[in-house]
Amino acid sequence: MKRIVVLGSTGSIGTSTLDVVAFFPEKFRVLALGAGRNLDLVEEQVRRFEPELVAVASAEGAAELTRRLPGRCRVVHGQGGLVEAALHPGAELVVCALVGAAGLRSTWAAVDAGRHLALANKESLVVGGALLTARAAETGARILPVDSEHNAIHQCLRGEDAREVRRLWLTGSGGPFRTQPLSALAEVTPAEALKHPTWRMGPKITVDSATLMNKGLEVIEAHWLFGLPPERIRVVIHPKSVVHSMVEFVDGSFKAQLGGADMRNPIQYALAWPDRWETSLPAFDPVSAGPLEFEEPDPARFPCLGLAFEALRHGGAAPAVLNAANEVAVEAFLDGTASFLDIPNTIRHTLERHAGDPARSLDDLLGADARARETAARALAQGVRQ
Amino acid sequence: MKRIVVLGSTGSIGTSTLDVVAFFPEKFRVLALGAGRNLDLVEEQVRRFEPELVAVASAEGAAELTRRLPGRCRVVHGQGGLVEAALHPGAELVVCALVGAAGLRSTWAAVDAGRHLALANKESLVVGGALLTARAAETGARILPVDSEHNAIHQCLRGEDAREVRRLWLTGSGGPFRTQPLSALAEVTPAEALKHPTWRMGPKITVDSATLMNKGLEVIEAHWLFGLPPERIRVVIHPKSVVHSMVEFVDGSFKAQLGGADMRNPIQYALAWPDRWETSLPAFDPVSAGPLEFEEPDPARFPCLGLAFEALRHGGAAPAVLNAANEVAVEAFLDGTASFLDIPNTIRHTLERHAGDPARSLDDLLGADARARETAARALAQGVRQ
Repeated sequence: MKRIVVLGSTGSIGTSTLDVVAFFPEKFRVLALGAGRNLDLVEEQVRRFEPELVAVASAEGAAELTRRLPGRCRVVHGQGGLVEAALHPGAELVVCALVGAAGLRSTWAAVDAGRHLALANKESLVVGGALLTARAAETGARILPVDSEHNAIHQCLRGEDAREVRRLWLTGSGGPFRTQPLSALAEVTPAEALKHPTWRMGPKITVDSATLMNKGLEVIEAHWLFGLPPERIRVVIHPKSVVHSMVEFVDGSFKAQLGGADMRNPIQYALAWPDRWETSLPAFDPVSAGPLEFEEPDPARFPCLGLAFEALRHGGAAPAVLNAANEVAVEAFLDGTASFLDIPNTIRHTLERHAGDPARSLDDLLGADARARETAARALAQGVRQ
Repeated sequence: MKRIVVLGSTGSIGTSTLDVVAFFPEKFRVLALGAGRNLDLVEEQVRRFEPELVAVASAEGAAELTRRLPGRCRVVHGQGGLVEAALHPGAELVVCALVGAAGLRSTWAAVDAGRHLALANKESLVVGGALLTARAAETGARILPVDSEHNAIHQCLRGEDAREVRRLWLTGSGGPFRTQPLSALAEVTPAEALKHPTWRMGPKITVDSATLMNKGLEVIEAHWLFGLPPERIRVVIHPKSVVHSMVEFVDGSFKAQLGGADMRNPIQYALAWPDRWETSLPAFDPVSAGPLEFEEPDPARFPCLGLAFEALRHGGAAPAVLNAANEVAVEAFLDGTASFLDIPNTIRHTLERHAGDPARSLDDLLGADARARETAARALAQGVRQ
């Protein structure tokens, strides 16, 4: 029986994680949940999985949930509450499915305490990859990637020697604007950006898929997870989302991991590792998968990808700044206060100002993150293109 | 430095093996070669690789080669000569690239002596799979598959637990007659059958690719190499020959191995295992590989595939009989004395008579093989369709 903590339990990855847990009731005990503001859903999850501790976003939420579930579990709140959940005594594995840089404090707490991590919060590695991976090496915390691409690479690297890897090939669907005329991109709406062709995900990551920033963040994440330099990480557009990523070895052989577009597959892999468990999810069928194609991404269409590579090559605080500016710009785009093309422009503008900020500690990085958010917001308010 | 023996050194796989050896002169010492009747080529190979022993087909050939290469190496001949080469003192790895059931005696000798085997001679496993794999388990001989499909599966199984495999998916190009009208198959010529769309191979295996018997033999080979029952081995047509095969795991995940159609890749893998060595062969590029598709094979077009599954399910001598009848029929087809459709008809006819022959020993199996050859030849001489 694995004793687990699920942070971000009411989001897309969190609910899928609890689906997997429910498939294997004899294999898991959920000790703690970390949620946000969706009290109805977290209430249902508490009744179903009976955790000892729940963290929610606000003090009011915590009070309300305590009223609804008297004596059922302890309720805490805020960043401190998430950290408390991550450190809940007896937990072996922390599933971190929080969205955005907000996941970093609790990811750090788990790694610092030597807890194994099933990590869906890519921003933790984008912002704090250098510190997190160094600390994980010291504490023995294992980081198992939940993102389908990194999960695929993890599968392809089983039984292989990392020194015999030539390149990693991350695949991406190319999102809804892969074939849109370039001139139309300035006018696309949030509703159009949220129509992802293959995966059903939360709104932030779906917009990131449309800009390919999602792939850019994954390049940075792959760098920290697998230790390869940026020039040995390739991105290819693969519209069907069937090949989840590939590894090229020094002897010229490629290994790929394939499957349907259901996040419960990589989540189950990460939860079951090093075992594989019989799934009751529908089987993937290569014959009906249709023709599989790979294309080079167009740098003019997807400037965010180039910005992410630039930030990774720059190092230090640059990836944190890239990520913060992107979060602010995507939120503004979803609110209707920024255009689609404001996203890369805001990021470029913010990187120019903060890429060189100090990055020696978690506090340094969170400082750079905060300053980048301010700069990005100001740039958007003033009209970033001027 | 690996001390190796190459049996079948003048054939397609043998010469590719020596190409790989020549890429890494510091890694190999060729102790013995086993060849057939191509004395000019084997003479050149002896001058280049300086083996201590060479086996050729006939006594006359051996005498002639000794005349041409006085004092350079010992020359032996016949089946006994191949066995002597396989058992050459000090050899660690025997590459068996002989064609047809003729490879069985020397494969057996190598396995019996606990020698590791890089096996391209699939007929060894088709005919004697039960005995060979049982003996290998006793002697500690490791069988590394060179066939691109099994090599792909071997790669996909690295670091995996065989009990967590749901199915093996063998891919095949479908050969030159994949889209030919069914009614035209009776009239196809050897020259047409030898035009393989993707791989350059010897004539026997190229005809086997056109009938899909090659895939059928590979199903049997996969059964013995990886221990899965016939109903858990699938065959799919994959015209581009880019995905060399796939493994489906119980958790729904698929792993595939991809690469160009150059046998030097899987040969190098088998020679280098458990390491992977930097190759100087051209890199495979997924972007230019074009759309990848998988189709169900049409049982009416490819009756040989169904016959192979039937023989595997029957067990005992049936696979040996299938293989022997196929060898006779393919030879007759290549000689122009049999039609393309005579191939499955001859096999069916022969299986009906000999599938139940005894199969307790290597001699039993070679007896069944000999009787099947006689029956097949007689059937062809008498007009098999009557």
